[in-house]
Amino acid sequence: MLSREEYLIFGVSINNKYGEDAAEFAYAGLLALQHRGQEGAGIAVLSGNSIVCHKNQGLVSEVFSGEALKCLKSRSAVGNCMYSTHINNTDIVNNVNDITEDVQPVFTEYLTGRIATVHSGNVINAKELKAELMTYGIAFMGTSDSEVISKLIAYHSTKEKSVVNGVKVAAELLKGAFSLVVLSTENNKLIAVRDSSGFRPLCMGKNERGIAVASESCALDTNGFGFVRDIKPGEIVVAEDGKITYEEVVLTPKIKNAGVCIFEYVYLARPDSFIDSLGVYDAKVNLGKILAEENPAEADIVCAVPESGIEAAIGYSQESGLPLITGLIRNRYVGRSFIYPTQTQRENIVKVKFNAMKSNIAGKRIVLVDDSIVRGTSMKIIVGMMKNAGAKEVHLRISSPPVKYTCHFGVDTKSEDVIANKMKLDEICKEIGADSLGYISLDGLKKACGKCSLPLCVRCFENNGEM
Amino acid sequence: MLSREEYLIFGVSINNKYGEDAAEFAYAGLLALQHRGQEGAGIAVLSGNSIVCHKNQGLVSEVFSGEALKCLKSRSAVGNCMYSTHINNTDIVNNVNDITEDVQPVFTEYLTGRIATVHSGNVINAKELKAELMTYGIAFMGTSDSEVISKLIAYHSTKEKSVVNGVKVAAELLKGAFSLVVLSTENNKLIAVRDSSGFRPLCMGKNERGIAVASESCALDTNGFGFVRDIKPGEIVVAEDGKITYEEVVLTPKIKNAGVCIFEYVYLARPDSFIDSLGVYDAKVNLGKILAEENPAEADIVCAVPESGIEAAIGYSQESGLPLITGLIRNRYVGRSFIYPTQTQRENIVKVKFNAMKSNIAGKRIVLVDDSIVRGTSMKIIVGMMKNAGAKEVHLRISSPPVKYTCHFGVDTKSEDVIANKMKLDEICKEIGADSLGYISLDGLKKACGKCSLPLCVRCFENNGEM
Amino acid sequence: MLSREEYLIFGVSINNKYGEDAAEFAYAGLLALQHRGQEGAGIAVLSGNSIVCHKNQGLVSEVFSGEALKCLKSRSAVGNCMYSTHINNTDIVNNVNDITEDVQPVFTEYLTGRIATVHSGNVINAKELKAELMTYGIAFMGTSDSEVISKLIAYHSTKEKSVVNGVKVAAELLKGAFSLVVLSTENNKLIAVRDSSGFRPLCMGKNERGIAVASESCALDTNGFGFVRDIKPGEIVVAEDGKITYEEVVLTPKIKNAGVCIFEYVYLARPDSFIDSLGVYDAKVNLGKILAEENPAEADIVCAVPESGIEAAIGYSQESGLPLITGLIRNRYVGRSFIYPTQTQRENIVKVKFNAMKSNIAGKRIVLVDDSIVRGTSMKIIVGMMKNAGAKEVHLRISSPPVKYTCHFGVDTKSEDVIANKMKLDEICKEIGADSLGYISLDGLKKACGKCSLPLCVRCFENNGEM
Amino acid sequence: MLSREEYLIFGVSINNKYGEDAAEFAYAGLLALQHRGQEGAGIAVLSGNSIVCHKNQGLVSEVFSGEALKCLKSRSAVGNCMYSTHINNTDIVNNVNDITEDVQPVFTEYLTGRIATVHSGNVINAKELKAELMTYGIAFMGTSDSEVISKLIAYHSTKEKSVVNGVKVAAELLKGAFSLVVLSTENNKLIAVRDSSGFRPLCMGKNERGIAVASESCALDTNGFGFVRDIKPGEIVVAEDGKITYEEVVLTPKIKNAGVCIFEYVYLARPDSFIDSLGVYDAKVNLGKILAEENPAEADIVCAVPESGIEAAIGYSQESGLPLITGLIRNRYVGRSFIYPTQTQRENIVKVKFNAMKSNIAGKRIVLVDDSIVRGTSMKIIVGMMKNAGAKEVHLRISSPPVKYTCHFGVDTKSEDVIANKMKLDEICKEIGADSLGYISLDGLKKACGKCSLPLCVRCFENNGEM
Repeated sequence: MLSREEYLIFGVSINNKYGEDAAEFAYAGLLALQHRGQEGAGIAVLSGNSIVCHKNQGLVSEVFSGEALKCLKSRSAVGNCMYSTHINNTDIVNNVNDITEDVQPVFTEYLTGRIATVHSGNVINAKELKAELMTYGIAFMGTSDSEVISKLIAYHSTKEKSVVNGVKVAAELLKGAFSLVVLSTENNKLIAVRDSSGFRPLCMGKNERGIAVASESCALDTNGFGFVRDIKPGEIVVAEDGKITYEEVVLTPKIKNAGVCIFEYVYLARPDSFIDSLGVYDAKVNLGKILAEENPAEADIVCAVPESGIEAAIGYSQESGLPLITGLIRNRYVGRSFIYPTQTQRENIVKVKFNAMKSNIAGKRIVLVDDSIVRGTSMKIIVGMMKNAGAKEVHLRISSPPVKYTCHFGVDTKSEDVIANKMKLDEICKEIGADSLGYISLDGLKKACGKCSLPLCVRCFENNGEM
Repeated sequence: MLSREEYLIFGVSINNKYGEDAAEFAYAGLLALQHRGQEGAGIAVLSGNSIVCHKNQGLVSEVFSGEALKCLKSRSAVGNCMYSTHINNTDIVNNVNDITEDVQPVFTEYLTGRIATVHSGNVINAKELKAELMTYGIAFMGTSDSEVISKLIAYHSTKEKSVVNGVKVAAELLKGAFSLVVLSTENNKLIAVRDSSGFRPLCMGKNERGIAVASESCALDTNGFGFVRDIKPGEIVVAEDGKITYEEVVLTPKIKNAGVCIFEYVYLARPDSFIDSLGVYDAKVNLGKILAEENPAEADIVCAVPESGIEAAIGYSQESGLPLITGLIRNRYVGRSFIYPTQTQRENIVKVKFNAMKSNIAGKRIVLVDDSIVRGTSMKIIVGMMKNAGAKEVHLRISSPPVKYTCHFGVDTKSEDVIANKMKLDEICKEIGADSLGYISLDGLKKACGKCSLPLCVRCFENNGEM
Repeated sequence: MLSREEYLIFGVSINNKYGEDAAEFAYAGLLALQHRGQEGAGIAVLSGNSIVCHKNQGLVSEVFSGEALKCLKSRSAVGNCMYSTHINNTDIVNNVNDITEDVQPVFTEYLTGRIATVHSGNVINAKELKAELMTYGIAFMGTSDSEVISKLIAYHSTKEKSVVNGVKVAAELLKGAFSLVVLSTENNKLIAVRDSSGFRPLCMGKNERGIAVASESCALDTNGFGFVRDIKPGEIVVAEDGKITYEEVVLTPKIKNAGVCIFEYVYLARPDSFIDSLGVYDAKVNLGKILAEENPAEADIVCAVPESGIEAAIGYSQESGLPLITGLIRNRYVGRSFIYPTQTQRENIVKVKFNAMKSNIAGKRIVLVDDSIVRGTSMKIIVGMMKNAGAKEVHLRISSPPVKYTCHFGVDTKSEDVIANKMKLDEICKEIGADSLGYISLDGLKKACGKCSLPLCVRCFENNGEM
Repeated sequence: MLSREEYLIFGVSINNKYGEDAAEFAYAGLLALQHRGQEGAGIAVLSGNSIVCHKNQGLVSEVFSGEALKCLKSRSAVGNCMYSTHINNTDIVNNVNDITEDVQPVFTEYLTGRIATVHSGNVINAKELKAELMTYGIAFMGTSDSEVISKLIAYHSTKEKSVVNGVKVAAELLKGAFSLVVLSTENNKLIAVRDSSGFRPLCMGKNERGIAVASESCALDTNGFGFVRDIKPGEIVVAEDGKITYEEVVLTPKIKNAGVCIFEYVYLARPDSFIDSLGVYDAKVNLGKILAEENPAEADIVCAVPESGIEAAIGYSQESGLPLITGLIRNRYVGRSFIYPTQTQRENIVKVKFNAMKSNIAGKRIVLVDDSIVRGTSMKIIVGMMKNAGAKEVHLRISSPPVKYTCHFGVDTKSEDVIANKMKLDEICKEIGADSLGYISLDGLKKACGKCSLPLCVRCFENNGEM
């Protein structure tokens, strides 16, 4: 619903005693992260002194539907899947380079080794770093941040005569939100880095076979890697042959009012993931509870907008004592990428996506819970649908405050699209056709995520001043 | 999970005063029925004295991703989507005909008109009917039942000099489970038929524009057609230009112990559909309640296997008073058609599909609810997953009795695959690793669906004797 | 260049002593016939008492690029490739049926057997035959002639209780131009039929393995089947297990002034084929010789428009004594199906297709030979190209008379498109920019093909009166 | 037939007064060069201060089948098509990068500008240059020579603060066979370079709109650019806005016994091209004449193996006085990329490709002319085919000497595959089944190409000693 470009990352290092199935772990890990990145996927593995990569546009299962996985035999792998609102589905003309330019991993060969790099997040000084690298005579083949990061690492790894030192110097130069995993031919190293603010999550798991790192802990669970801990802000962790050989917080903090992006809990992460000591499911249920405290309603039942509002609705139900009832059914075959083929019924996409459970809601006063309102057009149709199905009242409750400020580090909502930036609360309520409307407060939001072990970045909700 | 071949059908007739958007209604209707048929889809419309059809293998959204829908301008349409465990995904060699042979609608031209036919269900005397038609010199281009039905209708419509009479005679000759919609160039007729036992559902909706019929009522809701009633067993309904012009129960009952297939409520239909006066959601919740009555458990919480066990778990929770908690997260990107690309981790598909919510279940005694157990292999992994996540006990409760008998009319489970046909209850429980196991009884099942206005067919659960 | 719909056919019957490679012979045979049919291809084989078929749109090599051929193990096969100016390349919406409706072979099952049918040519009473079949209650699933032919054979094979007799009766009822091969499960029969006028060629070959029939003899050569003879007009030939078991002229002539279509020699057939005792290469060279006799020119060299004019240019050179020189090079990658992607330079397609050999033609007076002129637009560009390359004079000579009449049996040129129907000879010459222009006469054409053992059909060049 | 990797290049600069149709010229140019490069194609154009590129694997017509060309509006363009025996058609796993890595143009951004580079030929010191660039901290994303060339140019253009000087310095460092066209955002420059030996051809054309450069002159003809001259060995030519602004021979010769690769005339170039003052058609005809002088035969007719032997057969016929007759027909649909789908008849590919013209050759003593023999297996089948068709004698004549030495600059034949390196002349003749066999001598070859304005490189035929 919100505009963003995102990469989900996974890396694994297996001990020599075990088989060469790193790519299969990466594959399963990417499947687990698929909810955040359906537009492209790739896996790179070490193969002797070289690196072999397979990547393409599409779902993880599509990119690896053929024989590719079988060819990626190795004990070390990195992978990513990506989401982008920018990607040109038509594939017709690609600016400057070929159609898979933006898909990671990025392979780079430099004087003393080869690396494959995956990263998530936004580096805000990429242009400046690129310009500086170019003054050394370094050329670029595309426009992606990942190429800048790769070449920065390669340049400094050459200078430092060590990939770990190269990554350290490079990471210190990068300003912004990033988690980074580098696969290196230098002694089979797998290097994981999290930016000094910890904007984007990155965690580590372990089993008898080796070490894995992932954007979300659910990707560790899938693979049978026991969760060990989150990578700390500014930390670099190195694994070799399935063992940690280096771990140290080395990057200096650079950005004020920074921390882990609260949107991870509100919107992005899978409920079964744990991020910086806080379970996403618990955070979402807490949001619902506080939402109920802050915005009670005279109602009979609580319903969720599936699937985005389910956990908050559970919390609202628990706090309010109102029973949680299935009020809407969601058609699983109408996903984010679904395009309605004709103009006439384009507005019907919401009608195709949701159906009201008449027998459950007729005659009822309903608290309807969702995680956000952007334009408000879908919500208007949903509320109308419930009223048509006989709902007596619909009290809309939203488990995040309205996004007010553009964020350069993560979720990028055009603020002019957000209905809350154009109308007052009562106007929105009227426009949508609800009987009452309540957002959680920013304080409530912070409180719900209070058990997070890191500071929270909430700059999209409040003016944090300069960076 | 169960082997079957199924077609979901939709038909619509719009009044002359409104636009030619019948195909768009059919499209939205098929999207709503997509959960039961992902292998192929097609829509046929009247175009003057001719019929135009577009169909192919794939999801509804894939088959109609291009310009097809725009070309199908009409006020009358039929459509279907199909599910098949038989379809050859490789498309390499097709027995006897081309790759889309099995996809409906089936077009047929006969002496005095043209028809497009969609049907769901199994006709058990198709071979005999085909053999008889061949004695008249009639030839067949493929092996599908739908071709037999189409040619039977065409033959008798020619003889009777009326498509409605032709459909009557043909439907009287058909033995088995079928719902049928025929689009005819003869005065723009849309003809809906339900077999005399009412095995497969078929319902009718209405709005100011016209009349629609559908396999499930959710497909009417999506399109804004108000539910009118179920088509009765043995009834033929004819619509012309958006109005009912004929409706009469004409087919004589032929099969003993027949009725609406109980699997519609247990497994097949969408929760938001109503079938023969009984809401599927309500039926499933009832199943959970009776399951709780019949199979109580000393436990702390109730968890569902998503999404198949959700409604029954709600019922179990309501009846038992145990709180319903999210214990498993399902990866939406690992669907029925997902194929694991390598052998090594094939058993991991369940691990990729589900993840246990550690924080919700650790230390808890859990009632785990699902709608069925077939081989038991997946359930074994799921139970293990929950135990690994800290569940103290897992009490498995299944909202349908074990399938014992082969059914010729619908869901076709190979009984040798069903674990309940190979082991006793306690053996299954041990094999799966659960702490206790309970199935709902057949009487419980019948009771849960007691408000169904038709007799229920439960021949897959009990020996109904001869047909 | 001329509008037509055409099917090229091949059939083979192998003796039991040899392997099941009939489909491979069919494949090689279709490749040899590919010049006349690039839009679709299919092969059907006997498989026990059944028939297995693989067909699709596209080149032979594309349709069988995968595993299909390997699955078609049999000693009996029929195949076809098709050309059509009607085919909708977009595949979006297909009238009445699915996208491969028009591709043969057509499978048909009737009371006592199964057949796969391929045919070439046009049956002019297909509508009447269809209407009659429909009076018996027989229905049709599409609009193709091949379905009519198949069902006619099936109907009469049922009545006659013999597929050979059924084919006889059916073929006697068909009016028009057709060559037909039927593969039958009845004792593994392969039945070849040529219409009583012999419009379309059909020949028979033999080797130690068995019998093959083909539209053109080049398809026999490719497979190592020695040419035996042409099938006679009105003849039915039956092969079983690699041996001829029946051959007799049984069909009565029905059409006046009929014979083998002269366009086979002028335009359609491969130069290395022999049709009814006349080699196509020889016929084309003769055309060039007579063209030279009838239309001499004061010139220095003879050039061909490659590849259509090459053989006639050889003949012109031999007769005139002028040396044959390469004056134009043809780009093999710009074929019939090539589409220029932008408007701006669409007229450039001829410039991309041909290039003048400056060093060979500069300062020369040239006789330029081609087989036909339709619109004249391409020829105008070619002549201009040669003049720009320094040709002093260009004398255009065409080895066929202008097409004047619509033909219902084969090549269907819209007469209003033919420049010769809109302008006089000197006007055409001026329009094209040639220094002189000459067509061969109809008498010259007949003389050039004088050694053909059958009468020639020239109804497209002269008014033959009623059929 | 010979193993090689090749790129064909085209560049164009249009004057401001004319439209932005540079990409369309490039497209037509690439179509003209398609005979030498069917595996991939790409076009890059200037777009303001940026460069837009579209490239992919496949034929030119396939790569630009969609909307791409319409989006490439510009007055400056470079393009290439590529041929490679190395390319992995399966596209499954690509070493180190994505599937289109090897396809040019290569885009590069450096400090003061952007360039798109296309090159043909082999740079033999690419590894050394890459290693040196890496010592500066420059990293590489793939393994292609084109990336090395691009980054070398970028590095030196940065140092020199001028793209022209950068290209000069870079080109002076490159050792090997290369023609190079660089499109630069620095004042819309199009820079063409030919290596100091002139191994690979590169020529220049002109019309009122502007300037074009191309690998072969046929690509200029297609576009209506009048041939101006060949780019000289070691020359750099710069065009801006459709006018030449710089032309100078600046590169110093580095390789002994070097010159234009004689394989251009023997095998690679289109007959209608002129390379260094010698027409390819004329060269090939001369080869045939000298072949006839050196290897006369007592025969009745001359036949060519189409299409490779046609021009030499013309020369042989002219010199010997024996008539040139069509003895073999080639199936145009069985091209280089054709793969026989089954093992059984794989040897049949030659039989499917060629057919003997029985009526022309029966009873004749034939001189059969082709341009080369590699393994001899195809030729053996062809000779057998002609004998089966009744040829009394087949005297094989080859218009190039046997390839004896590996060439690092161009055509790379594995010498162990060449039959002439394993057998003596009479053994080859016997193996192939010919009645006599003669190759042209190296002196004859040189003489046939005597009018070439540059020295000829014949190192594949003789031991040229060190480089």
